[in-house]
Amino acid sequence: MDVNTSTQSELDLWAEEFIGDFASQRYRVIETLHVSQTKFQKLSLVKTAGHGKVLFLDGLVMCSERDEFVYHDMIAHVPMFVHPNPKRVLVIGGGDGGTAREVLRHQGVDRCVMVEIDGEVVDVCREHFKQTSCSFDDPRLELRIEDGVKFMAETQETFDLILVDSTDPIGPATPLFGEAFYNNVKRVLADDGMVVAQGETPFYEEEAQRLILQNLAKSFDNRYMYNYNNLCYPGGLWSFVVATKGLCPMGDFDEARIAASGLTFDYYNAEVHRAAFALPQFQRNNLGDLLTPFKK
Amino acid sequence: MDVNTSTQSELDLWAEEFIGDFASQRYRVIETLHVSQTKFQKLSLVKTAGHGKVLFLDGLVMCSERDEFVYHDMIAHVPMFVHPNPKRVLVIGGGDGGTAREVLRHQGVDRCVMVEIDGEVVDVCREHFKQTSCSFDDPRLELRIEDGVKFMAETQETFDLILVDSTDPIGPATPLFGEAFYNNVKRVLADDGMVVAQGETPFYEEEAQRLILQNLAKSFDNRYMYNYNNLCYPGGLWSFVVATKGLCPMGDFDEARIAASGLTFDYYNAEVHRAAFALPQFQRNNLGDLLTPFKK
Repeated sequence: MDVNTSTQSELDLWAEEFIGDFASQRYRVIETLHVSQTKFQKLSLVKTAGHGKVLFLDGLVMCSERDEFVYHDMIAHVPMFVHPNPKRVLVIGGGDGGTAREVLRHQGVDRCVMVEIDGEVVDVCREHFKQTSCSFDDPRLELRIEDGVKFMAETQETFDLILVDSTDPIGPATPLFGEAFYNNVKRVLADDGMVVAQGETPFYEEEAQRLILQNLAKSFDNRYMYNYNNLCYPGGLWSFVVATKGLCPMGDFDEARIAASGLTFDYYNAEVHRAAFALPQFQRNNLGDLLTPFKK
Repeated sequence: MDVNTSTQSELDLWAEEFIGDFASQRYRVIETLHVSQTKFQKLSLVKTAGHGKVLFLDGLVMCSERDEFVYHDMIAHVPMFVHPNPKRVLVIGGGDGGTAREVLRHQGVDRCVMVEIDGEVVDVCREHFKQTSCSFDDPRLELRIEDGVKFMAETQETFDLILVDSTDPIGPATPLFGEAFYNNVKRVLADDGMVVAQGETPFYEEEAQRLILQNLAKSFDNRYMYNYNNLCYPGGLWSFVVATKGLCPMGDFDEARIAASGLTFDYYNAEVHRAAFALPQFQRNNLGDLLTPFKK
Protein backbone atom coordinates (compact mmCIF):
# COMPACT_ATOMS: atom_id res chain seq x y z
CA MET A 1 0.00 0.00 0.00
CA ASP A 2 1.14 3.49 -0.77
CA VAL A 3 -0.31 5.88 1.73
CA ASN A 4 0.39 9.47 2.47
CA THR A 5 0.72 9.45 6.23
CA SER A 6 -0.54 12.95 6.82
CA THR A 7 -3.86 13.14 8.60
CA GLN A 8 -4.61 16.70 7.62
CA SER A 9 -8.19 16.54 6.49
CA GLU A 10 -7.78 18.95 3.60
CA LEU A 11 -5.48 16.52 1.80
CA ASP A 12 -6.83 14.01 -0.70
CA LEU A 13 -5.37 10.79 0.74
CA TRP A 14 -5.69 7.39 -0.90
CA ALA A 15 -4.39 3.98 0.10
CA GLU A 16 -3.65 1.89 -2.98
CA GLU A 17 -3.16 -1.84 -3.49
CA PHE A 18 -1.42 -2.74 -6.73
CA ILE A 19 -2.23 -5.83 -8.79
CA GLY A 20 1.09 -6.55 -10.47
CA ASP A 21 1.97 -3.31 -12.24
CA PHE A 22 -1.15 -3.26 -14.37
CA ALA A 23 -4.06 -2.40 -12.08
CA SER A 24 -4.85 -1.14 -8.59
CA GLN A 25 -7.61 -0.61 -6.07
CA ARG A 26 -7.74 2.62 -4.11
CA TYR A 27 -9.49 3.57 -0.89
CA ARG A 28 -10.07 7.13 0.28
CA VAL A 29 -8.34 7.57 3.63
CA ILE A 30 -9.84 9.61 6.43
CA GLU A 31 -7.11 8.89 8.95
CA THR A 32 -3.86 6.97 9.07
CA LEU A 33 -3.95 5.04 12.33
CA HIS A 34 -0.67 3.14 12.10
CA VAL A 35 2.27 2.65 9.75
CA SER A 36 5.34 0.67 10.73
CA GLN A 37 7.94 -1.74 9.45
CA THR A 38 7.72 -4.72 11.78
CA LYS A 39 10.38 -7.40 12.06
CA PHE A 40 8.55 -9.27 9.29
CA GLN A 41 6.55 -6.93 7.08
CA LYS A 42 5.16 -3.47 6.46
CA LEU A 43 2.07 -2.93 8.58
CA SER A 44 -0.45 -0.18 7.83
CA LEU A 45 -3.86 0.46 9.26
CA VAL A 46 -6.04 3.26 7.91
CA LYS A 47 -9.57 4.47 8.43
CA THR A 48 -11.26 4.75 5.05
CA ALA A 49 -14.29 6.67 3.82
CA GLY A 50 -16.13 3.64 2.48
CA HIS A 51 -14.80 0.45 4.09
CA GLY A 52 -14.18 1.32 7.72
CA LYS A 53 -10.75 0.49 9.01
CA VAL A 54 -8.53 -1.43 6.57
CA LEU A 55 -5.45 -3.45 7.53
CA PHE A 56 -2.62 -3.77 5.00
CA LEU A 57 0.42 -6.07 5.19
CA ASP A 58 3.20 -5.44 2.68
CA GLY A 59 0.81 -3.28 0.67
CA LEU A 60 -1.94 -5.92 0.38
CA VAL A 61 -5.38 -5.55 1.97
CA MET A 62 -5.80 -8.17 4.70
CA CYS A 63 -9.21 -7.16 5.95
CA SER A 64 -11.62 -4.26 6.20
CA GLU A 65 -14.30 -3.67 8.79
CA ARG A 66 -16.85 -3.65 5.98
CA ASP A 67 -16.17 -7.06 4.49
CA GLU A 68 -14.09 -9.13 6.94
CA PHE A 69 -17.22 -11.16 7.75
CA VAL A 70 -17.01 -12.85 4.35
CA TYR A 71 -13.49 -14.24 4.73
CA HIS A 72 -13.89 -15.16 8.38
CA ASP A 73 -17.27 -16.85 7.88
CA MET A 74 -15.88 -18.93 5.06
CA ILE A 75 -12.53 -19.99 6.52
CA ALA A 76 -14.17 -21.06 9.79
CA HIS A 77 -17.74 -22.26 9.34
CA VAL A 78 -17.31 -24.40 6.24
CA PRO A 79 -14.97 -26.85 8.06
CA MET A 80 -16.72 -26.40 11.43
CA PHE A 81 -19.97 -27.76 9.96
CA VAL A 82 -18.24 -30.62 8.12
CA HIS A 83 -16.16 -32.02 10.98
CA PRO A 84 -18.66 -33.87 13.22
CA ASN A 85 -17.36 -32.52 16.52
CA PRO A 86 -14.50 -30.03 16.33
CA LYS A 87 -13.12 -29.37 19.82
CA ARG A 88 -9.46 -28.52 19.28
CA VAL A 89 -8.77 -25.90 16.62
CA LEU A 90 -5.41 -24.49 15.53
CA VAL A 91 -5.19 -21.18 13.66
CA ILE A 92 -1.88 -20.40 11.95
CA GLY A 93 -1.57 -16.68 11.25
CA GLY A 94 -4.79 -14.72 11.53
CA GLY A 95 -3.22 -11.93 13.57
CA ASP A 96 -6.30 -9.71 13.31
CA GLY A 97 -8.26 -12.25 15.39
CA GLY A 98 -11.27 -12.63 13.06
CA THR A 99 -10.78 -16.33 12.33
CA ALA A 100 -10.44 -17.19 16.03
CA ARG A 101 -13.53 -15.07 16.71
CA GLU A 102 -15.67 -17.18 14.37
CA VAL A 103 -14.19 -20.47 15.64
CA LEU A 104 -14.96 -19.51 19.22
CA ARG A 105 -18.61 -18.75 18.47
CA HIS A 106 -19.05 -22.53 18.36
CA GLN A 107 -19.84 -23.64 21.89
CA GLY A 108 -18.37 -27.10 21.32
CA VAL A 109 -14.86 -25.73 20.88
CA ASP A 110 -12.79 -26.42 24.01
CA ARG A 111 -9.54 -24.90 22.89
CA CYS A 112 -8.29 -22.67 20.08
CA VAL A 113 -4.55 -22.18 19.68
CA MET A 114 -3.55 -19.26 17.48
CA VAL A 115 0.05 -19.00 16.32
CA GLU A 116 0.91 -15.63 14.80
CA ILE A 117 4.49 -14.86 13.81
CA ASP A 118 4.17 -11.09 14.07
CA GLY A 119 3.23 -9.80 17.52
CA GLU A 120 3.02 -6.27 16.21
CA VAL A 121 0.01 -7.22 14.04
CA VAL A 122 -1.71 -8.54 17.16
CA ASP A 123 -0.84 -5.42 19.17
CA VAL A 124 -2.01 -3.00 16.50
CA CYS A 125 -5.27 -4.92 15.93
CA ARG A 126 -5.85 -5.10 19.68
CA GLU A 127 -5.63 -1.31 19.78
CA HIS A 128 -7.36 -0.34 16.51
CA PHE A 129 -9.33 -3.32 15.13
CA LYS A 130 -11.51 -4.49 18.00
CA GLN A 131 -14.14 -5.86 15.62
CA THR A 132 -11.84 -8.83 15.06
CA SER A 133 -9.36 -8.70 17.98
CA CYS A 134 -12.20 -9.10 20.50
CA SER A 135 -11.47 -12.83 20.26
CA PHE A 136 -8.20 -12.39 22.14
CA ASP A 137 -10.17 -12.04 25.38
CA ASP A 138 -11.80 -15.49 25.14
CA PRO A 139 -10.38 -17.80 27.84
CA ARG A 140 -10.46 -20.74 25.42
CA LEU A 141 -7.93 -18.95 23.17
CA GLU A 142 -4.21 -19.57 23.60
CA LEU A 143 -2.37 -16.88 21.67
CA ARG A 144 1.24 -17.71 20.81
CA ILE A 145 3.56 -15.24 19.12
CA GLU A 146 5.90 -17.53 17.24
CA ASP A 147 6.68 -19.00 13.85
CA GLY A 148 3.82 -21.23 12.72
CA VAL A 149 6.18 -23.43 10.72
CA LYS A 150 8.34 -24.08 13.77
CA PHE A 151 5.28 -24.63 15.98
CA MET A 152 3.89 -27.15 13.52
CA ALA A 153 7.19 -29.01 13.39
CA GLU A 154 7.51 -29.24 17.18
CA THR A 155 4.05 -29.48 18.73
CA GLN A 156 2.94 -32.78 20.23
CA GLU A 157 -0.72 -31.70 20.40
CA THR A 158 -3.41 -33.08 18.12
CA PHE A 159 -6.04 -30.86 16.48
CA ASP A 160 -9.39 -31.55 14.83
CA LEU A 161 -9.13 -28.53 12.53
CA ILE A 162 -6.20 -26.47 11.35
CA LEU A 163 -6.95 -23.14 9.66
CA VAL A 164 -4.05 -21.51 7.83
CA ASP A 165 -5.04 -17.85 7.74
CA SER A 166 -2.01 -16.50 5.93
CA THR A 167 -1.00 -13.77 3.53
CA ASP A 168 0.12 -14.63 0.02
CA PRO A 169 3.01 -16.97 -0.83
CA ILE A 170 5.47 -14.09 -0.88
CA GLY A 171 7.12 -12.61 2.21
CA PRO A 172 6.92 -14.25 5.64
CA ALA A 173 4.08 -16.63 4.68
CA THR A 174 6.00 -18.45 1.93
CA PRO A 175 6.85 -21.56 4.03
CA LEU A 176 3.15 -21.95 4.89
CA PHE A 177 2.54 -23.00 1.32
CA GLY A 178 5.30 -25.66 1.23
CA GLU A 179 5.53 -29.43 1.35
CA ALA A 180 7.42 -29.63 4.67
CA PHE A 181 4.72 -27.62 6.44
CA TYR A 182 1.93 -29.83 5.17
CA ASN A 183 3.74 -33.00 6.21
CA ASN A 184 3.61 -31.65 9.74
CA VAL A 185 -0.01 -30.58 9.35
CA LYS A 186 -0.84 -34.18 8.54
CA ARG A 187 1.07 -35.41 11.60
CA VAL A 188 -0.69 -32.95 13.92
CA LEU A 189 -4.21 -33.54 12.58
CA ALA A 190 -6.53 -36.05 14.26
CA ASP A 191 -7.65 -39.04 12.20
CA ASP A 192 -10.85 -37.26 11.21
CA GLY A 193 -9.09 -33.91 10.94
CA MET A 194 -9.13 -31.34 8.18
CA VAL A 195 -7.06 -28.34 7.19
CA VAL A 196 -8.28 -25.22 5.39
CA ALA A 197 -5.82 -22.72 3.94
CA GLN A 198 -5.97 -19.43 2.09
CA GLY A 199 -5.89 -20.37 -1.59
CA GLU A 200 -5.45 -17.17 -3.64
CA THR A 201 -7.64 -16.04 -6.53
CA PRO A 202 -8.54 -18.04 -9.65
CA PHE A 203 -8.60 -14.90 -11.80
CA TYR A 204 -5.08 -13.61 -11.23
CA GLU A 205 -3.27 -16.56 -9.62
CA GLU A 206 -3.95 -19.61 -11.78
CA GLU A 207 -0.39 -20.91 -11.46
CA ALA A 208 -0.22 -20.29 -7.70
CA GLN A 209 -3.46 -22.21 -7.20
CA ARG A 210 -1.98 -25.21 -9.03
CA LEU A 211 1.23 -25.06 -6.98
CA ILE A 212 -0.68 -24.94 -3.69
CA LEU A 213 -2.69 -28.04 -4.63
CA GLN A 214 0.38 -29.84 -5.97
CA ASN A 215 2.12 -29.29 -2.62
CA LEU A 216 -0.96 -30.46 -0.73
CA ALA A 217 -1.05 -33.60 -2.89
CA LYS A 218 2.30 -34.71 -1.49
CA SER A 219 0.73 -35.13 1.97
CA PHE A 220 -3.03 -35.53 1.45
CA ASP A 221 -5.14 -37.82 -0.73
CA ASN A 222 -8.31 -35.75 -0.25
CA ARG A 223 -8.11 -32.23 -1.66
CA TYR A 224 -10.88 -29.72 -2.37
CA MET A 225 -11.23 -26.05 -3.21
CA TYR A 226 -14.04 -23.61 -2.51
CA ASN A 227 -14.63 -19.98 -3.37
CA TYR A 228 -15.95 -16.88 -1.66
CA ASN A 229 -16.64 -13.31 -2.69
CA ASN A 230 -14.41 -10.82 -1.01
CA LEU A 231 -15.24 -7.17 -1.52
CA CYS A 232 -11.72 -5.76 -1.15
CA TYR A 233 -9.43 -8.50 -2.48
CA PRO A 234 -8.41 -7.91 -6.11
CA GLY A 235 -10.69 -9.71 -8.52
CA GLY A 236 -13.33 -10.36 -5.85
CA LEU A 237 -13.41 -14.15 -6.30
CA TRP A 238 -10.99 -15.90 -3.93
CA SER A 239 -10.47 -19.50 -2.82
CA PHE A 240 -9.71 -21.71 0.14
CA VAL A 241 -8.09 -25.12 -0.19
CA VAL A 242 -9.18 -28.03 1.99
CA ALA A 243 -7.34 -31.26 2.72
CA THR A 244 -8.68 -34.06 4.91
CA LYS A 245 -7.84 -37.56 6.07
CA GLY A 246 -11.19 -38.81 4.81
CA LEU A 247 -13.94 -36.26 5.42
CA CYS A 248 -15.65 -34.81 2.37
CA PRO A 249 -16.76 -31.16 2.67
CA MET A 250 -19.86 -31.88 0.58
CA GLY A 251 -20.74 -35.49 1.44
CA ASP A 252 -20.09 -35.04 5.17
CA PHE A 253 -21.66 -31.58 5.43
CA ASP A 254 -24.47 -31.80 7.96
CA GLU A 255 -26.81 -28.90 7.25
CA ALA A 256 -28.96 -29.61 10.33
CA ARG A 257 -26.06 -28.70 12.58
CA ILE A 258 -26.30 -25.06 11.44
CA ALA A 259 -29.78 -24.62 12.88
CA ALA A 260 -28.83 -26.69 15.93
CA SER A 261 -25.89 -24.39 16.64
CA GLY A 262 -28.18 -21.39 17.05
CA LEU A 263 -25.63 -19.32 15.16
CA THR A 264 -26.51 -16.81 12.45
CA PHE A 265 -24.18 -15.39 9.85
CA ASP A 266 -23.98 -12.46 7.47
CA TYR A 267 -22.42 -14.43 4.61
CA TYR A 268 -22.50 -18.17 5.35
CA ASN A 269 -25.57 -20.38 5.08
CA ALA A 270 -26.22 -23.96 3.93
CA GLU A 271 -26.77 -23.02 0.28
CA VAL A 272 -23.63 -20.87 0.27
CA HIS A 273 -21.68 -23.82 1.72
CA ARG A 274 -22.61 -26.09 -1.16
CA ALA A 275 -22.41 -23.36 -3.81
CA ALA A 276 -18.88 -22.44 -2.76
CA PHE A 277 -17.59 -25.75 -4.12
CA ALA A 278 -19.05 -25.10 -7.60
CA LEU A 279 -16.01 -23.81 -9.45
CA PRO A 280 -16.28 -21.71 -12.61
CA GLN A 281 -15.32 -23.77 -15.63
CA PHE A 282 -11.98 -22.00 -16.23
CA GLN A 283 -10.96 -22.75 -12.65
CA ARG A 284 -12.10 -26.37 -12.94
CA ASN A 285 -10.15 -26.71 -16.19
CA ASN A 286 -7.03 -25.43 -14.44
CA LEU A 287 -7.30 -27.50 -11.26
CA GLY A 288 -9.66 -30.42 -11.84
CA ASP A 289 -6.90 -33.04 -12.06
CA LEU A 290 -5.67 -32.04 -8.59
CA LEU A 291 -9.06 -32.16 -6.86
CA THR A 292 -10.82 -35.14 -5.26
CA PRO A 293 -14.36 -36.10 -6.39
CA PHE A 294 -17.06 -35.56 -3.75
CA LYS A 295 -18.52 -38.44 -1.77
CA LYS A 296 -22.27 -38.85 -2.30
CA MET B 1 -13.53 6.96 -16.32
CA ASP B 2 -10.83 9.55 -16.19
CA VAL B 3 -8.30 8.86 -18.87
CA ASN B 4 -5.43 10.88 -20.17
CA THR B 5 -5.94 10.64 -23.91
CA SER B 6 -2.30 10.84 -24.86
CA THR B 7 -0.88 7.68 -26.34
CA GLN B 8 2.74 8.60 -25.84
CA SER B 9 4.27 5.48 -24.37
CA GLU B 10 6.54 7.28 -21.93
CA LEU B 11 3.53 8.57 -20.00
CA ASP B 12 2.07 6.68 -17.05
CA LEU B 13 -1.57 6.46 -18.13
CA TRP B 14 -4.35 5.00 -15.99
CA ALA B 15 -8.07 4.64 -16.60
CA GLU B 16 -9.97 4.88 -13.34
CA GLU B 17 -13.50 3.86 -12.33
CA PHE B 18 -14.77 5.53 -9.18
CA ILE B 19 -17.00 3.84 -6.63
CA GLY B 20 -18.91 6.75 -5.17
CA ASP B 21 -16.22 9.14 -3.99
CA PHE B 22 -14.64 6.64 -1.59
CA ALA B 23 -12.85 4.06 -3.72
CA SER B 24 -11.69 3.37 -7.26
CA GLN B 25 -10.27 0.72 -9.56
CA ARG B 26 -7.48 1.66 -11.94
CA TYR B 27 -6.17 0.01 -15.10
CA ARG B 28 -2.83 0.78 -16.71
CA VAL B 29 -3.47 2.04 -20.23
CA ILE B 30 -1.26 1.13 -23.16
CA GLU B 31 -3.30 2.94 -25.78
CA THR B 32 -6.42 5.06 -25.91
CA LEU B 33 -8.43 3.72 -28.84
CA HIS B 34 -11.51 5.93 -28.64
CA VAL B 35 -12.97 8.72 -26.52
CA SER B 36 -16.17 10.54 -27.47
CA GLN B 37 -19.32 12.06 -26.10
CA THR B 38 -22.14 10.32 -27.96
CA LYS B 39 -25.71 11.57 -28.07
CA PHE B 40 -26.35 9.55 -24.90
CA GLN B 41 -23.17 9.02 -22.88
CA LYS B 42 -19.42 9.28 -22.65
CA LEU B 43 -17.83 6.40 -24.54
CA SER B 44 -14.20 5.38 -23.97
CA LEU B 45 -12.30 2.37 -25.17
CA VAL B 46 -8.73 1.74 -24.05
CA LYS B 47 -6.19 -1.02 -24.42
CA THR B 48 -4.90 -1.94 -20.96
CA ALA B 49 -1.78 -3.70 -19.76
CA GLY B 50 -3.61 -6.42 -17.82
CA HIS B 51 -7.19 -6.74 -19.06
CA GLY B 52 -7.00 -6.36 -22.84
CA LYS B 53 -9.34 -3.79 -24.31
CA VAL B 54 -11.77 -2.23 -21.83
CA LEU B 55 -14.99 -0.43 -22.75
CA PHE B 56 -16.25 2.36 -20.47
CA LEU B 57 -19.63 4.12 -20.60
CA ASP B 58 -20.00 7.25 -18.48
CA GLY B 59 -16.87 6.26 -16.59
CA LEU B 60 -18.03 2.74 -15.67
CA VAL B 61 -16.39 -0.43 -16.98
CA MET B 62 -18.82 -2.27 -19.27
CA CYS B 63 -16.58 -5.11 -20.34
CA SER B 64 -12.98 -6.13 -20.79
CA GLU B 65 -11.56 -8.66 -23.18
CA ARG B 66 -10.20 -10.55 -20.18
CA ASP B 67 -13.42 -11.13 -18.29
CA GLU B 68 -16.39 -10.45 -20.59
CA PHE B 69 -16.96 -14.23 -20.81
CA VAL B 70 -18.26 -14.24 -17.24
CA TYR B 71 -21.04 -11.69 -17.73
CA HIS B 72 -22.04 -12.96 -21.16
CA ASP B 73 -22.09 -16.62 -20.13
CA MET B 74 -24.28 -15.82 -17.17
CA ILE B 75 -26.81 -13.44 -18.76
CA ALA B 76 -27.37 -15.82 -21.68
CA HIS B 77 -26.90 -19.47 -20.75
CA VAL B 78 -28.72 -19.52 -17.41
CA PRO B 79 -32.08 -18.68 -19.08
CA MET B 80 -31.24 -20.53 -22.30
CA PHE B 81 -30.96 -23.82 -20.36
CA VAL B 82 -34.10 -23.17 -18.30
CA HIS B 83 -36.51 -22.28 -21.10
CA PRO B 84 -37.32 -25.61 -22.82
CA ASN B 85 -36.98 -24.35 -26.38
CA PRO B 86 -35.93 -20.72 -26.81
CA LYS B 87 -36.24 -19.72 -30.47
CA ARG B 88 -36.98 -15.99 -30.37
CA VAL B 89 -34.66 -13.91 -28.20
CA LEU B 90 -34.72 -10.16 -27.63
CA VAL B 91 -31.66 -8.32 -26.29
CA ILE B 92 -32.19 -4.78 -25.01
CA GLY B 93 -28.91 -2.89 -24.89
CA GLY B 94 -25.80 -5.03 -25.16
CA GLY B 95 -24.14 -2.76 -27.70
CA ASP B 96 -20.82 -4.58 -27.49
CA GLY B 97 -22.47 -7.67 -29.00
CA GLY B 98 -21.32 -10.21 -26.39
CA THR B 99 -24.79 -11.18 -25.18
CA ALA B 100 -26.05 -11.75 -28.72
CA ARG B 101 -22.89 -13.77 -29.44
CA GLU B 102 -23.66 -16.23 -26.62
CA VAL B 103 -27.37 -16.44 -27.52
CA LEU B 104 -26.52 -17.24 -31.14
CA ARG B 105 -24.21 -20.11 -30.18
CA HIS B 106 -27.42 -22.02 -29.48
CA GLN B 107 -28.41 -23.72 -32.75
CA GLY B 108 -32.09 -23.72 -31.79
CA VAL B 109 -32.33 -19.92 -31.88
CA ASP B 110 -34.11 -18.79 -35.05
CA ARG B 111 -34.00 -15.07 -34.46
CA CYS B 112 -32.27 -12.64 -32.12
CA VAL B 113 -33.38 -9.01 -32.12
CA MET B 114 -30.97 -6.61 -30.47
CA VAL B 115 -32.17 -3.10 -29.67
CA GLU B 116 -29.36 -0.72 -28.75
CA ILE B 117 -30.08 2.96 -28.21
CA ASP B 118 -26.56 4.18 -28.96
CA GLY B 119 -25.35 3.38 -32.48
CA GLU B 120 -21.94 4.83 -31.67
CA VAL B 121 -21.33 2.02 -29.13
CA VAL B 122 -22.08 -0.51 -31.86
CA ASP B 123 -19.82 1.26 -34.37
CA VAL B 124 -16.88 1.58 -31.97
CA CYS B 125 -17.17 -2.06 -30.86
CA ARG B 126 -17.44 -3.19 -34.47
CA GLU B 127 -14.13 -1.45 -35.12
CA HIS B 128 -12.23 -2.13 -31.90
CA PHE B 129 -13.93 -4.94 -29.92
CA LYS B 130 -14.33 -7.79 -32.40
CA GLN B 131 -14.22 -10.40 -29.61
CA THR B 132 -17.83 -9.46 -28.85
CA SER B 133 -19.03 -7.60 -31.95
CA CYS B 134 -18.44 -10.66 -34.15
CA SER B 135 -22.09 -11.51 -33.42
CA PHE B 136 -23.24 -8.63 -35.64
CA ASP B 137 -22.40 -10.72 -38.72
CA ASP B 138 -24.78 -13.58 -37.82
CA PRO B 139 -27.71 -13.62 -40.29
CA ARG B 140 -30.11 -14.55 -37.47
CA LEU B 141 -29.37 -11.22 -35.74
CA GLU B 142 -31.55 -8.20 -36.41
CA LEU B 143 -29.72 -5.15 -35.04
CA ARG B 144 -31.93 -2.13 -34.39
CA ILE B 145 -30.53 1.22 -33.29
CA GLU B 146 -33.42 2.65 -31.33
CA ASP B 147 -34.77 3.24 -27.83
CA GLY B 148 -35.45 -0.09 -26.16
CA VAL B 149 -38.23 1.41 -24.07
CA LYS B 150 -40.03 2.66 -27.17
CA PHE B 151 -39.43 -0.63 -29.00
CA MET B 152 -40.88 -2.57 -26.09
CA ALA B 153 -43.96 -0.35 -25.99
CA GLU B 154 -44.65 -0.70 -29.70
CA THR B 155 -43.54 -4.13 -30.90
CA GLN B 156 -46.17 -6.69 -31.80
CA GLU B 157 -43.67 -9.56 -31.79
CA THR B 158 -43.53 -12.24 -29.11
CA PHE B 159 -40.28 -13.47 -27.58
CA ASP B 160 -39.31 -16.52 -25.57
CA LEU B 161 -36.50 -14.73 -23.77
CA ILE B 162 -35.78 -11.08 -23.14
CA LEU B 163 -32.30 -10.16 -21.91
CA VAL B 164 -31.89 -6.62 -20.59
CA ASP B 165 -28.16 -5.98 -20.95
CA SER B 166 -28.07 -2.44 -19.63
CA THR B 167 -25.83 -0.06 -17.75
CA ASP B 168 -26.74 1.08 -14.25
CA PRO B 169 -30.00 2.83 -13.33
CA ILE B 170 -28.45 6.23 -13.94
CA GLY B 171 -28.11 7.91 -17.34
CA PRO B 172 -29.83 6.57 -20.46
CA ALA B 173 -30.66 3.17 -18.93
CA THR B 174 -32.86 4.55 -16.11
CA PRO B 175 -36.23 3.74 -17.82
CA LEU B 176 -35.08 0.12 -18.28
CA PHE B 177 -35.44 -0.36 -14.54
CA GLY B 178 -38.99 1.05 -14.32
CA GLU B 179 -42.50 -0.31 -13.93
CA ALA B 180 -43.78 0.84 -17.34
CA PHE B 181 -40.99 -1.01 -19.11
CA TYR B 182 -41.69 -4.27 -17.30
CA ASN B 183 -45.40 -4.08 -18.02
CA ASN B 184 -44.46 -4.14 -21.71
CA VAL B 185 -41.92 -6.91 -21.15
CA LYS B 186 -44.74 -9.02 -19.76
CA ARG B 187 -46.94 -8.25 -22.76
CA VAL B 188 -44.20 -9.14 -25.24
CA LEU B 189 -43.12 -12.37 -23.53
CA ALA B 190 -44.54 -15.73 -24.61
CA ASP B 191 -46.56 -17.67 -22.05
CA ASP B 192 -43.49 -19.68 -21.04
CA GLY B 193 -41.22 -16.69 -21.41
CA MET B 194 -38.63 -15.26 -19.06
CA VAL B 195 -36.72 -12.03 -18.71
CA VAL B 196 -33.22 -11.61 -17.28
CA ALA B 197 -31.87 -8.15 -16.43
CA GLN B 198 -28.66 -6.65 -15.06
CA GLY B 199 -29.22 -6.45 -11.31
CA GLU B 200 -26.33 -4.45 -9.80
CA THR B 201 -24.11 -5.56 -6.90
CA PRO B 202 -25.25 -6.74 -3.48
CA PHE B 203 -22.20 -5.20 -1.80
CA TYR B 204 -22.58 -1.57 -2.86
CA GLU B 205 -26.16 -1.39 -4.17
CA GLU B 206 -28.41 -2.95 -1.57
CA GLU B 207 -31.13 -0.32 -2.01
CA ALA B 208 -30.99 -0.45 -5.83
CA GLN B 209 -31.40 -4.23 -5.75
CA ARG B 210 -34.55 -3.86 -3.65
CA LEU B 211 -35.96 -1.20 -5.98
CA ILE B 212 -35.35 -3.34 -9.06
CA LEU B 213 -37.20 -6.29 -7.51
CA GLN B 214 -39.99 -4.07 -6.21
CA ASN B 215 -40.56 -2.75 -9.73
CA LEU B 216 -40.49 -6.28 -11.15
CA ALA B 217 -43.06 -7.35 -8.56
CA LYS B 218 -45.63 -4.98 -10.08
CA SER B 219 -45.66 -7.07 -13.28
CA PHE B 220 -44.38 -10.54 -12.38
CA ASP B 221 -45.33 -13.08 -9.72
CA ASN B 222 -42.16 -15.15 -10.20
CA ARG B 223 -38.95 -13.31 -9.34
CA TYR B 224 -35.44 -14.67 -8.75
CA MET B 225 -31.90 -13.36 -8.42
CA TYR B 226 -28.58 -15.00 -9.22
CA ASN B 227 -25.00 -13.91 -8.83
CA TYR B 228 -21.80 -14.07 -10.85
CA ASN B 229 -18.19 -13.09 -10.26
CA ASN B 230 -17.05 -10.30 -12.46
CA LEU B 231 -13.36 -9.47 -12.42
CA CYS B 232 -13.62 -5.77 -13.30
CA TYR B 233 -16.94 -4.66 -11.81
CA PRO B 234 -16.51 -2.97 -8.41
CA GLY B 235 -16.94 -5.43 -5.57
CA GLY B 236 -16.65 -8.45 -7.88
CA LEU B 237 -19.98 -10.01 -6.89
CA TRP B 238 -22.81 -8.89 -9.19
CA SER B 239 -26.37 -10.06 -9.82
CA PHE B 240 -28.95 -10.70 -12.48
CA VAL B 241 -32.69 -10.59 -11.82
CA VAL B 242 -35.04 -13.07 -13.45
CA ALA B 243 -38.81 -12.86 -13.87
CA THR B 244 -40.96 -15.52 -15.50
CA LYS B 245 -44.58 -16.36 -16.22
CA GLY B 246 -44.16 -19.70 -14.47
CA LEU B 247 -40.75 -21.24 -15.22
CA CYS B 248 -38.44 -21.75 -12.26
CA PRO B 249 -34.71 -21.29 -12.99
CA MET B 250 -33.86 -24.07 -10.54
CA GLY B 251 -36.80 -26.48 -10.80
CA ASP B 252 -37.01 -26.23 -14.59
CA PHE B 253 -33.26 -26.27 -15.20
CA ASP B 254 -32.50 -29.25 -17.41
CA GLU B 255 -28.84 -30.06 -16.93
CA ALA B 256 -28.84 -32.73 -19.65
CA ARG B 257 -29.46 -30.06 -22.26
CA ILE B 258 -25.97 -28.61 -21.64
CA ALA B 259 -24.24 -31.78 -22.81
CA ALA B 260 -26.80 -32.22 -25.60
CA SER B 261 -26.02 -28.72 -26.88
CA GLY B 262 -22.39 -29.62 -27.52
CA LEU B 263 -21.42 -26.19 -26.19
CA THR B 264 -18.54 -25.58 -23.80
CA PHE B 265 -18.01 -22.53 -21.66
CA ASP B 266 -15.23 -20.80 -19.74
CA TYR B 267 -17.41 -19.79 -16.76
CA TYR B 268 -20.81 -21.49 -16.96
CA ASN B 269 -21.48 -25.14 -16.09
CA ALA B 270 -24.32 -27.03 -14.40
CA GLU B 271 -22.90 -26.61 -10.89
CA VAL B 272 -22.30 -22.90 -11.46
CA HIS B 273 -25.92 -22.57 -12.65
CA ARG B 274 -27.30 -23.93 -9.39
CA ALA B 275 -24.69 -22.25 -7.20
CA ALA B 276 -25.45 -18.84 -8.69
CA PHE B 277 -28.87 -18.84 -6.99
CA ALA B 278 -27.34 -19.39 -3.52
CA LEU B 279 -27.30 -15.85 -2.17
CA PRO B 280 -24.99 -14.79 0.68
CA GLN B 281 -26.99 -14.34 3.86
CA PHE B 282 -26.77 -10.53 3.90
CA GLN B 283 -28.20 -10.42 0.38
CA ARG B 284 -30.94 -12.90 1.30
CA ASN B 285 -31.78 -10.83 4.36
CA ASN B 286 -32.12 -7.75 2.16
CA LEU B 287 -34.16 -9.28 -0.65
CA GLY B 288 -35.73 -12.52 0.58
CA ASP B 289 -39.25 -11.09 0.91
CA LEU B 290 -39.18 -10.06 -2.76
CA LEU B 291 -38.00 -13.41 -4.15
CA THR B 292 -40.08 -16.44 -5.13
CA PRO B 293 -39.34 -19.86 -3.58
CA PHE B 294 -37.95 -22.44 -6.00
CA LYS B 295 -40.11 -25.23 -7.39
CA LYS B 296 -38.82 -28.67 -6.47
